[in-house]
Parts: sequence; C-alpha cells; structure tokens
Amino acid sequence: MAARTVKLAVIPGDGIGPEVVGEGLKVLDTVAAQHDLAFETTEYELGAELWHRTGETLPESVESELAQQEAIYLGAVGDPSVPSGVLERGLLLKLRFDFDHYVNLRPVRLFPGVRTPLAGVAPEDIDMLVVREGTEGPYAGAGGVLRKGTPNEIATQDSVNTRVGVERLIRYAFAKAAERPRRKLTLVHKDNVLTFAGDLYQRVLKEVAAEYPQVSVDYCHVDAASMFFVDQPGRFDVVVTDNLFGDIITDIGAAITGGIGLAASGNVNPDRTFPSMFEPVHGSAPDIAGQGKADPTATVLSAATMLEHLGMPEAARKVENAVAADLRTRGDEERSTSRIGDDLAARVAEQG
Amino acid sequence: MAARTVKLAVIPGDGIGPEVVGEGLKVLDTVAAQHDLAFETTEYELGAELWHRTGETLPESVESELAQQEAIYLGAVGDPSVPSGVLERGLLLKLRFDFDHYVNLRPVRLFPGVRTPLAGVAPEDIDMLVVREGTEGPYAGAGGVLRKGTPNEIATQDSVNTRVGVERLIRYAFAKAAERPRRKLTLVHKDNVLTFAGDLYQRVLKEVAAEYPQVSVDYCHVDAASMFFVDQPGRFDVVVTDNLFGDIITDIGAAITGGIGLAASGNVNPDRTFPSMFEPVHGSAPDIAGQGKADPTATVLSAATMLEHLGMPEAARKVENAVAADLRTRGDEERSTSRIGDDLAARVAEQG
Ligand SMILES: CC(C)[C@H](C(=O)O)[C@@H](O)C(=O)O
Ligand SMILES: CC(C)[C@H](C(=O)O)[C@@H](O)C(=O)O
Repeated sequence: MAARTVKLAVIPGDGIGPEVVGEGLKVLDTVAAQHDLAFETTEYELGAELWHRTGETLPESVESELAQQEAIYLGAVGDPSVPSGVLERGLLLKLRFDFDHYVNLRPVRLFPGVRTPLAGVAPEDIDMLVVREGTEGPYAGAGGVLRKGTPNEIATQDSVNTRVGVERLIRYAFAKAAERPRRKLTLVHKDNVLTFAGDLYQRVLKEVAAEYPQVSVDYCHVDAASMFFVDQPGRFDVVVTDNLFGDIITDIGAAITGGIGLAASGNVNPDRTFPSMFEPVHGSAPDIAGQGKADPTATVLSAATMLEHLGMPEAARKVENAVAADLRTRGDEERSTSRIGDDLAARVAEQG
Repeated sequence: MAARTVKLAVIPGDGIGPEVVGEGLKVLDTVAAQHDLAFETTEYELGAELWHRTGETLPESVESELAQQEAIYLGAVGDPSVPSGVLERGLLLKLRFDFDHYVNLRPVRLFPGVRTPLAGVAPEDIDMLVVREGTEGPYAGAGGVLRKGTPNEIATQDSVNTRVGVERLIRYAFAKAAERPRRKLTLVHKDNVLTFAGDLYQRVLKEVAAEYPQVSVDYCHVDAASMFFVDQPGRFDVVVTDNLFGDIITDIGAAITGGIGLAASGNVNPDRTFPSMFEPVHGSAPDIAGQGKADPTATVLSAATMLEHLGMPEAARKVENAVAADLRTRGDEERSTSRIGDDLAARVAEQG
C-alpha cells in the first residue's frame, strides 16, 4: 500500500474533457507509483449531459462530497446545446466561488521546440506567472436587467472588489514573485477608467510592496499590457490582475506560447479551507470530441500544478520535464490523444 | 476663398500631442488646398498644464465652444504628474460622453512594408474595423467605495448598458460590414460570465441581423478573440464590442499591425448632434516629448478618418495613400516627427 493516499475528485466533463483527463490520470498514476503515492479517485458526472437530464448543474449533495476531497481534476465543461452561462455560472464559477479559489494560477511559458506566432521570440523571452483573482470582480454575477425587451432596457453588470479579496491575492503574488529569480511583480488593471476598483488595487499593492523591498513593482493598464504581451512579453515576470483582465491576458498568453492546447491552470485556495481545482484553460471543443485528436498536454501540465499544490514538488517537476522533453522533440507527425498520454507517461517513468 | 470651410477645434494636449497634431494639420492643409477646402482652426489648451494651473479639466465655456465646431482633432492628453483618471475622466471621456461619441472607430490594418511581431502574416491577413462602444458600459463611471481604508472596504465598478446604446452601435456596425467586401460581423463579448450585459448585446445582434441577411454574423468571447487576434487575425472583418473590450482588443490590434505609433481612431457621433473627435490611440509619451522623435502617422491617419466623416472620401483616400506609400518605403533611417510630416504632405501633394 502507498504511504500517502490523495482523495482526488475527477470531473471529466463534456467534449474532449474525458479524453484529456484520462491521459492526465495516466501520467499522474505513473508519477504516483514512483513516489509511494496513490490517487483514490471518485468520478463525478457533471456538465451538459447531467443538465439536459436533470436540469441541475451542481447538485448540493455532489458539492458536499467534492468539499471532502483533497483536490479536483477537471477536463472541460460546456456544449453548444446548453445556453451560454448556464454551466459557467452554475458549475465552473460556482465551484471557484464556493470553494474560495481566490488565486487562479496560470503560468505563461514558451517551452523550447514550441512554435509561437511571434517572430524572433525565444523561450527565455516568455516566462511569466499570471496570478488572476478568482472569486470576485466582474465575475461576481452582480447586476440585472430592467425593462427587458423594451426600448428602455438597461442591463448592468457590477464588479465587486473587496479589500480582503484584493489583499490576499496581492500577498500571494508578492510571495510568488519573491521566490522567482527576476523578482518582479506587475499589476495589470485600468485604474484611469475603473477608478474605484483600480484605486483599491493600487493602494493595496503599495502597502504590501513595503513588506517586499526585494521585489520590484510595476503597473500597466490592461490595454497596454495586452499589447506588451505581444510585442514585449519579456517585460513580465509575475503578473497580478483582476478576474476579467486575467481571463483575457492569459488567453493572449496562451496564444503566444503555442496555443490553448498547452495552457494549464490551477484554481487555488491557498488557505486549504476547500479543495483546489486544476483544469486546462481550453474548453470542451465538441467539434473534435471523441476522435482522439485533442492534445492532453494542458491537462497534464495542470496535474503538475496540482502536485505542486499537494506538496509534491519533485513529482511536479517530473511531469513538467516529461512535457518539456515531449514538446522539444515534436515533429510534424500527428499523434492521438492517448498516444501523447502514453509518451508523457513513459517520459515520467524514465525519470524513475 | 475656399468653397468650403470646416471649423476645426484643435486640442494639442500634452507630451508629444502638440508635435504630432502639428504634422497632422500640415497634411490636412495640403489636402485641403487640393479640394477647395479650408480648415478654420481654433486651438484649445486643455490637459495637464491647464489642470495644474487652474484645477480644471474642461471648463464649461470651452466645452460650449467645442460643441459649436464641426470636428475636434486631438493629440494626446496625460502626464505622470496628474493623478491617474483625472484627465481621462475629466476631459477625454467627458468629451466622448457629453458629445455622444457612441462609435469609437478603430481600423486594424497591416500596411505593406510594416513590421508585425507576428510570424508569417501578410498585409491581406489583417484588415479589420473595430466598432467599439464609446459612451457606456464599464466606462460609465458608476460605482463607489464603502469603508475606504478599512479591512471591510468594498469597491464597485458598474457596467451600464442600454438598449438604445447597444442598438445604435450594432446598427452602425452592420451598416459598415455591409459595405465591405467580406461582409462579416463578429460580436466580441463575454456573455457566459457577464450574462446580463452579454444577453442584451446578443439579443440586439440577432434582431438587427435579420435586416442584414447579406452579412454573416459570428460571436467570440473576448478571451478567445484576444487569442485569435494573435494567432488567426484573418478571421475578423468588422468587430463590434463594448467599451472596455474594445479598448483592450484594439491595443492588441495595434500591436499586431506595427504598434501604437500607427493606430488611428475616431470618436464618432454618427447622428452629428455634436462634433466628432479624432485622435491617435497612443498616449502623450512624455518620455520622448519635444524631441522630434514621435511618429505622427497615427495622428495623420486619424485625420483621414476625420475627412471621411466630414464627407470627403477622396481626400481621405489621398491621406491614406500617402501613409501607405510612406510605410512601404520606410527603411531603417530614423526621421524626425516633422520630417515624416513633410514627407507625408509631399506624398499628398503628388496626388494632385
Ligand atoms: C469558461 C469561462 C467561465 C472561464 C472564465 O472566464 O474564467 C474560462 O474562460 C477560463 O478562463 O477558465
Ligand atoms: C486614455 C484612456 C481613457 C483611453 C480609453 O481607455 O479609452 C485610451 O486607452 C484609448 O483607448 O483611447
């Protein structure tokens, strides 16, 4: 029997979700065997199918069970047959909010061998960590509609930002920045227009910065930052930003580092009051579902982030090394989802 | 005497603003002479200096005078010595809002000869027109702060979207799309998270689309769109989007088409109840101000958008042609701001 057992909730989800999660688990099991570790997985069927069958997105009983797990591993949810927002608000964001995933951690790294759409950019030019807020801001769900369907209709959408929420995020970001060689933290916001929220972020940034004299601090409006991600990505190390800006800039980050097929993320509750959730940035891609065409790499990299969070940095490094080696040697040959998973598992195994 | 006189308000502004506007006027005067046209300019000193001297950003008397002009030509406002938001909210956005500039028009075009940071992209791959909302959304200025400076502080920032505002914007975008060869319109929003505002945009889009069967309609979440701007810019023709998303994606647009030095914009009131305002997308760049280093091209291109709005499409084409010819033949030689202006004016003159 393994020395440590991790209770892991698995939510395969829709579209390519089950395929990529399957490969992720394959890699996880391989690395676990080497570290006297076992994953005790429980699968939860959440997503489009459940919603069509029952009208439910996250049954209360399921949520209480999830709350008892050590971590959650999610493939992707969503299907065009479900109205936009239903699964996002009812499942994905509900988990992020209820489980207090206040840090949405998204590394933006260009692995050697990966084709970027940017000309003249080398792997060492792109190595950032985006620390995106995950539990408030424009994602709060606040707002409403008045006089719907009439010429006098008004729809509002309110960004709610709390001192508590901003401070714990910014503290996390400083701690991460202090650990990295470049020790640089950039706040991305739009404080010249979103003056109330932007001012809160700026004041907290300044306060916490005083405790981290070794970290150099910068600020960038989100529009300028979006431009710099494309024409000067090297200027960023750790980036801290709000929920919506983080959503946008991490997709630009994905674009410049080889696309959404490689972008990993962790919805992290650093206080460990609830399980954290790890998922690829990409969606369920129903157009290629079930064909073995999906690249499981982002899901596998998300597992590395999970291992790190679970206190197993060595195991995390092995998974990352396996991915790096695989990416470095990719040719034009198309491999199936499970073939890529096998290759990654083998590269983990090699590291013994 | 010229057959037509256009009353033009000029706001040189701060930093490089006066320099680039000077070159824009040079080019405008050259093209005017060829079209039996004269610009009767009135200069208004607005910006950082006025604010420091008087504490005012837009005196009422100045605003009423501006309202009497046919158009406004603005360089750039802003200086690090002025707190973030003061000139933006008190001057730039105030003009956009008070003069009902509900269309913020931003062409995103890759001119031949211009270096893009994207690998393997040709000019024909990037030719879009972003129709950004200019008078509502997250820019409304709504929101507030409670318990400022305490651990219980809350800062809100509310996006206000009206049926009237969304419909007139989307109508404008369809009309533009119908005029273009590809006849494609993409709505960019985030309707799976910002469900109230996104739903309003979607419903209006569907309604107006029924009147434009010849226009093909697409939808993209803002995060995906930001990615596609980088790795598949060719998929966009006309893009319609809200105020904040438009701010962000047009800066990505600038990045992929040679940088902010070339990005033009028009703050347009299509109903002509107030003068429209034309300005480069870039800011006042105080670090290079007064050194003749600024590229006036974006300001000159904004003048072309202005000529179009004033009903002088031939004059607009000449200015664009001049810019295109200049960009096509740019070498590595550095030219001063006024030299570039001279060259552009000469290229307009050549077209007789
Ligand atoms: C699916 C959607 C709700 C989600 C988000 O906006 O956060 C996704 O885009 C992401 O980035 O994880
Ligand atoms: C200066 C700022 C208020 C402005 C905006 O956000 O609209 C600028 O970024 C722009 O794009 O014109």
